[in-house]
Amino acid sequence: MERTIDAQLEDLKNLTVEMGGQVEKALQTTVLGISRRDPQQFSNVHKIEELVNDLQIKIDNACLEVLAKQGPVAKDLRLILSIIKINTDLERMGDQCVNIAHIGREVLERTNNISFQDIEQMATTVKKMVKAALDSFVKMNVTMAREVLLMDDEVDSLRNKIFSESTARMKIEPAQIENLLDLILIARNLERLGDHSTNIAEDVIFALTGKDIRHQGAGA
Amino acid sequence: MERTIDAQLEDLKNLTVEMGGQVEKALQTTVLGISRRDPQQFSNVHKIEELVNDLQIKIDNACLEVLAKQGPVAKDLRLILSIIKINTDLERMGDQCVNIAHIGREVLERTNNISFQDIEQMATTVKKMVKAALDSFVKMNVTMAREVLLMDDEVDSLRNKIFSESTARMKIEPAQIENLLDLILIARNLERLGDHSTNIAEDVIFALTGKDIRHQGAGA
Repeated sequence: MERTIDAQLEDLKNLTVEMGGQVEKALQTTVLGISRRDPQQFSNVHKIEELVNDLQIKIDNACLEVLAKQGPVAKDLRLILSIIKINTDLERMGDQCVNIAHIGREVLERTNNISFQDIEQMATTVKKMVKAALDSFVKMNVTMAREVLLMDDEVDSLRNKIFSESTARMKIEPAQIENLLDLILIARNLERLGDHSTNIAEDVIFALTGKDIRHQGAGA
Repeated sequence: MERTIDAQLEDLKNLTVEMGGQVEKALQTTVLGISRRDPQQFSNVHKIEELVNDLQIKIDNACLEVLAKQGPVAKDLRLILSIIKINTDLERMGDQCVNIAHIGREVLERTNNISFQDIEQMATTVKKMVKAALDSFVKMNVTMAREVLLMDDEVDSLRNKIFSESTARMKIEPAQIENLLDLILIARNLERLGDHSTNIAEDVIFALTGKDIRHQGAGA
């Protein structure tokens, strides 16, 4: 028996939620590597990212199949378009986690004498933002998606704090320059994880309302 | 009279090429701002990015329309999926140009006493890579797309050079720390423009061959 479009869309949503769960796990593991100063966690991130990459290809193929076999229109078509875009964002979020893990490993190889306190605080906020974006997709809830857009300011302000404090410290502790630069680069990667969460929330809003709110700012 | 799917796909391709042209112009203008130390160019980048953003929404809507009205399959469907992804990459390339323009403006406000030589060299390579990726799309040529993937190594090596030299100089010229950090951040943004070019080339290969070569490395 042919599967209905509703059943196929449900499968697609479930795969996307599974991929989102793996990205959350990748981020969680990355942060654990930093907070526990445990390089083993960074190796685990690479394994999780491979699962994320496999899911990306699987979801793209599943989207192609539904598009070809069902010729969806209106709301169904918008959902598939959103999933294609969310899929791309989730894959790049996996990349960002790998980037952070890579930098984290380099820092730990160099020193044990650096505070990750601000990075951990920023990571906590970014984790909330990623979770909120994925929750808005799971529940297909516009209000939740709009809340994600508002969280970006906090991430940006934590990023600015890390940038300015690290730069100031570079001047008085030249021996720490590499490590402080790495904190800045980790903050930049965390900021991008926040940006991807924003993209996901915007795609959820588009899927549900048909309204494209990109390039209008968070208040739109 | 209803337009044929071939005519609609041709329109979609033309819009994508137009958007690619604007992204090239944004990058060109950004680099001009740096090489001529001319902040006016950085303001121009913002205006070009607005055109890029408008085109992104226009292309997404056009893709939705073709999908809904024509129910394309096989090669045509793959082309549309590729255009949806390339569209996302091009929009983010516009963002990267704005990021570089923003940092470039900050550097120029701070000093006139810094060499952009390595950045200009890296930018020249990235411009070639962006052009090659867009050419492979225009000509729908797999061989050209594969060549783009090989150009990434040169970009990475120039990025590493800027990272290590800037870090070394920070230690002996603490007064230049902010400017050297900005060179590093510009190099990171240029590297990401190269990554997006790789994504575009991979999408061209997928559109033409149906083969997903992501996550396999450049030799795949």
